[in-house]
Amino acid sequence: MDLSELDLVDHHCHGLVTRDLDRPEFESLMTEAAAPSALGGSLFDSQIGFALRRFCPPVLDLEPHADPDAYLARRAELGATEVNRRMMAAAGTQTFLVDTGYLPEPITTPTELAALTGGRGHEVVRLELVAAEVLEDGAGSFPERFRTELARRCATAVGVKSIAAYRAGLSLGGQRPTDVQVVAAADRLLRSGSTRVADPVLHEFLVWSGIDLQMPVQFHIGYGDADTDLHRGDPLLMTDLLRATEPHGVPIMLLHTYPFHRNAGFLAQVFGHVFVDVGLATHNLGARSAALIPELLELAPFGKVLFSSDAFGLAELYLLGTELFRRGLAGYLQQGTDDGAWTAADAHRVARLVGAENARRAYRL
Amino acid sequence: MDLSELDLVDHHCHGLVTRDLDRPEFESLMTEAAAPSALGGSLFDSQIGFALRRFCPPVLDLEPHADPDAYLARRAELGATEVNRRMMAAAGTQTFLVDTGYLPEPITTPTELAALTGGRGHEVVRLELVAAEVLEDGAGSFPERFRTELARRCATAVGVKSIAAYRAGLSLGGQRPTDVQVVAAADRLLRSGSTRVADPVLHEFLVWSGIDLQMPVQFHIGYGDADTDLHRGDPLLMTDLLRATEPHGVPIMLLHTYPFHRNAGFLAQVFGHVFVDVGLATHNLGARSAALIPELLELAPFGKVLFSSDAFGLAELYLLGTELFRRGLAGYLQQGTDDGAWTAADAHRVARLVGAENARRAYRL
Amino acid sequence: MDLSELDLVDHHCHGLVTRDLDRPEFESLMTEAAAPSALGGSLFDSQIGFALRRFCPPVLDLEPHADPDAYLARRAELGATEVNRRMMAAAGTQTFLVDTGYLPEPITTPTELAALTGGRGHEVVRLELVAAEVLEDGAGSFPERFRTELARRCATAVGVKSIAAYRAGLSLGGQRPTDVQVVAAADRLLRSGSTRVADPVLHEFLVWSGIDLQMPVQFHIGYGDADTDLHRGDPLLMTDLLRATEPHGVPIMLLHTYPFHRNAGFLAQVFGHVFVDVGLATHNLGARSAALIPELLELAPFGKVLFSSDAFGLAELYLLGTELFRRGLAGYLQQGTDDGAWTAADAHRVARLVGAENARRAYRL
Repeated sequence: MDLSELDLVDHHCHGLVTRDLDRPEFESLMTEAAAPSALGGSLFDSQIGFALRRFCPPVLDLEPHADPDAYLARRAELGATEVNRRMMAAAGTQTFLVDTGYLPEPITTPTELAALTGGRGHEVVRLELVAAEVLEDGAGSFPERFRTELARRCATAVGVKSIAAYRAGLSLGGQRPTDVQVVAAADRLLRSGSTRVADPVLHEFLVWSGIDLQMPVQFHIGYGDADTDLHRGDPLLMTDLLRATEPHGVPIMLLHTYPFHRNAGFLAQVFGHVFVDVGLATHNLGARSAALIPELLELAPFGKVLFSSDAFGLAELYLLGTELFRRGLAGYLQQGTDDGAWTAADAHRVARLVGAENARRAYRL
Repeated sequence: MDLSELDLVDHHCHGLVTRDLDRPEFESLMTEAAAPSALGGSLFDSQIGFALRRFCPPVLDLEPHADPDAYLARRAELGATEVNRRMMAAAGTQTFLVDTGYLPEPITTPTELAALTGGRGHEVVRLELVAAEVLEDGAGSFPERFRTELARRCATAVGVKSIAAYRAGLSLGGQRPTDVQVVAAADRLLRSGSTRVADPVLHEFLVWSGIDLQMPVQFHIGYGDADTDLHRGDPLLMTDLLRATEPHGVPIMLLHTYPFHRNAGFLAQVFGHVFVDVGLATHNLGARSAALIPELLELAPFGKVLFSSDAFGLAELYLLGTELFRRGLAGYLQQGTDDGAWTAADAHRVARLVGAENARRAYRL
Repeated sequence: MDLSELDLVDHHCHGLVTRDLDRPEFESLMTEAAAPSALGGSLFDSQIGFALRRFCPPVLDLEPHADPDAYLARRAELGATEVNRRMMAAAGTQTFLVDTGYLPEPITTPTELAALTGGRGHEVVRLELVAAEVLEDGAGSFPERFRTELARRCATAVGVKSIAAYRAGLSLGGQRPTDVQVVAAADRLLRSGSTRVADPVLHEFLVWSGIDLQMPVQFHIGYGDADTDLHRGDPLLMTDLLRATEPHGVPIMLLHTYPFHRNAGFLAQVFGHVFVDVGLATHNLGARSAALIPELLELAPFGKVLFSSDAFGLAELYLLGTELFRRGLAGYLQQGTDDGAWTAADAHRVARLVGAENARRAYRL
């Protein structure tokens, strides 16, 4: 089963860094580690490093498994613009849903990113960033002002994203907060001298505001960098919120989810509006993504599983995300076909659902 | 290795629905989702859906992988009685331990269920249901009245079951509550206008009452429907209770346990009275049950692993539970035999232990 | 790929029992169960039992898969000294880092253990044991006296070990406790009539004292015996402590980590000073260790993965730990080489890193 031409909607990614990078800068962008460690050696000695050396050198006219220095020398020789162009063309994704809320340095816009593959880019609005901007004008009438601003921003967007997992954790309640509670929480935050939302009441308010606009709500789940408290990122902690939001019929997207992907799959089965993916982990696990993808395809109905790369910065990550996803999914579906678990026709249908059709339906693209 | 004739004791299942079902009704009973979701499509597009289409159509004279509508049309044509008869005969289970405490609609009794395979049915008494009945007569002397009623009900039963996981969660203590504490808790409950037990003290009391009667105690663990808070269903939360109950020598059965089956396997190794299974998940994971069963067979001693279907309602689920269990276990044991990990004789002995002998020993059948 | 001669540093193990053992004594030492259970049958019917019967009988001149009684009869015939000599020679480990803090009965010293393979033994000092000794002289000036004594003990040691997971759990904070706080906590402990540390403040103090001495700090994580509360042994609970200690550049070793090995792998990626292993589980999982080792090699960079047996008491466990580790790692690396995921040269380099070089670098051996 060959899925190398499978149509893909990358329902969660970020923009590309467009400048040239030296080896420490490159390694710092390659995984969720802030930088390689003197104690542990190069991050190229890892699953993602080996996967990168397998799949990316040929795109730059080198042999597979080129050593890191040779690869980076060739990358510098070609320059970031040409490397980005080649890698994105090789990735072949046609539709990108781009989280525009993480901007540690200048990166491509959704439109610039999509132009590299001749595809389309759509924006996903990060809720906490909008909230911080609106909070600059005080806590009074914060709820109304936030709703107005979010509606304005969402007019050209396809979804919103919550990073509650990075801030207050995912123990979010099933009660929709009142505007009075929200103003009180905003007031407490501002008195502490910050506009950085990290309070369950405010996170819940942001999420409900997105739901009121019928915007699919993405949640950071599980795997991230050293700033995340992974044990507060288990999606099971959101169970009350999921029960409360289900009747509204607005999709909830559980992003990446590793190592809680089986928990996420359970939620996708029992809650009609829950969707799941294993982005970010797919490329970080390299060859082991072939074991990860079948673990996601346990309880999660095939109509609720999505593709994402969660790539940021390095063009290589977009390529690895798609390449490993296509291979992992194809390998698993082919094995089931060979074993008689399903027909080839059903296997291809599942691949189309997961690759693009589920996302198109859920986001109404 | 062929285990298609392996003797099976299904140590945890429910009764069959005996009426005819339309497609929405059928899909609603097929998984732990309440119903298919407009956002996510048919639940037949899932591991269990594909497994059902593989194994069940031939029992109704259709080709494997018949499409859902054709399958359901043939099912309607034959009628529920004939379908139930054929499926149960194909499942071939000879002994059923039936939880009689979940009755959302009229279903078969243990005796009626077992008659379909020519086997035997035994009752497992749901503790919280008995408690609710006894509480109708007030909190005063509740402990004595409950013990008397439970003893009466257990005279013809082989075990009891706790659904604490669905109510107060599994953070149960190591101290046996006194009757004074139990009466106080019962009084609080009744004052709140309910007889629905959802209080650690009462759940602990129910469990200890079962132990006093030397009844093996089944616990709902992990996987269930949208009413369960899965993060409160991790069996590790019961560690104190397991320490306290171990000296009594009464088996504790950790049911289904997915996705906490490795945690459950640990408990089965270190506590002499703990048994485990992966029912419910076996059929819901379809082809992936072949990966699940080996994960259970890690720390759990082979003398502490049990078979269950946890089937409810649809006859197809009993067939899938047994078929996938037999195949998954056979595949794993055969692979180990081929690799030299164990002998064929030991592999067959393990299959007999897990299929039936462990249950017969633990429940004294 | 043959790793049977791979150089191994066992960075976490205990001493050998030197007396002869009857079957109940042998079974009690074989797994983390205190003893076989009348309800569950022999512990030889388990993954570790089958692995032992596969690999150990030939060392005692028997056929593989000898039955337990025949094996134990031959073991008794040869005597513990000869069995220990043969098994350790077959294990072939050249360097042992030995936790000298668990002494339920007389066992070999690090030097005696290493002499059996012609290798070297180094000591790892158990923090809580030193604390208990120092606390015998009261709480006043406990911090200074502990630091002095620990420095003295560490002069000839290569690391320290914390068993906070067994006592207060791993919810350790990111604030280094002050000496005033430590004295207050020590005073509370002594007033309770104990010198057994089980208080986050004291555990944190012990850990920081090790870091001040530049001693790598080992942490018991996850899997252990029935005394451990496994849900308090998830290494994610240590996230704040890991953030606080990272700038000091002293390695933190997360021991065994099963069933939290994926969580541990995440920590090893995002924190530069975190190392991980799957000791103890490797031999207890028997043939399934071949599935466990690849799960560890997901997010954990290959420069941060270590080998340990965590063997205690039975010489068979040292052999099984090394044999299963060598086979599991070789099998996984060979498969990746065959699939083109990495080169054979890289596979061998990874094996050398994980087998010994990472430990030599981290412990400065």
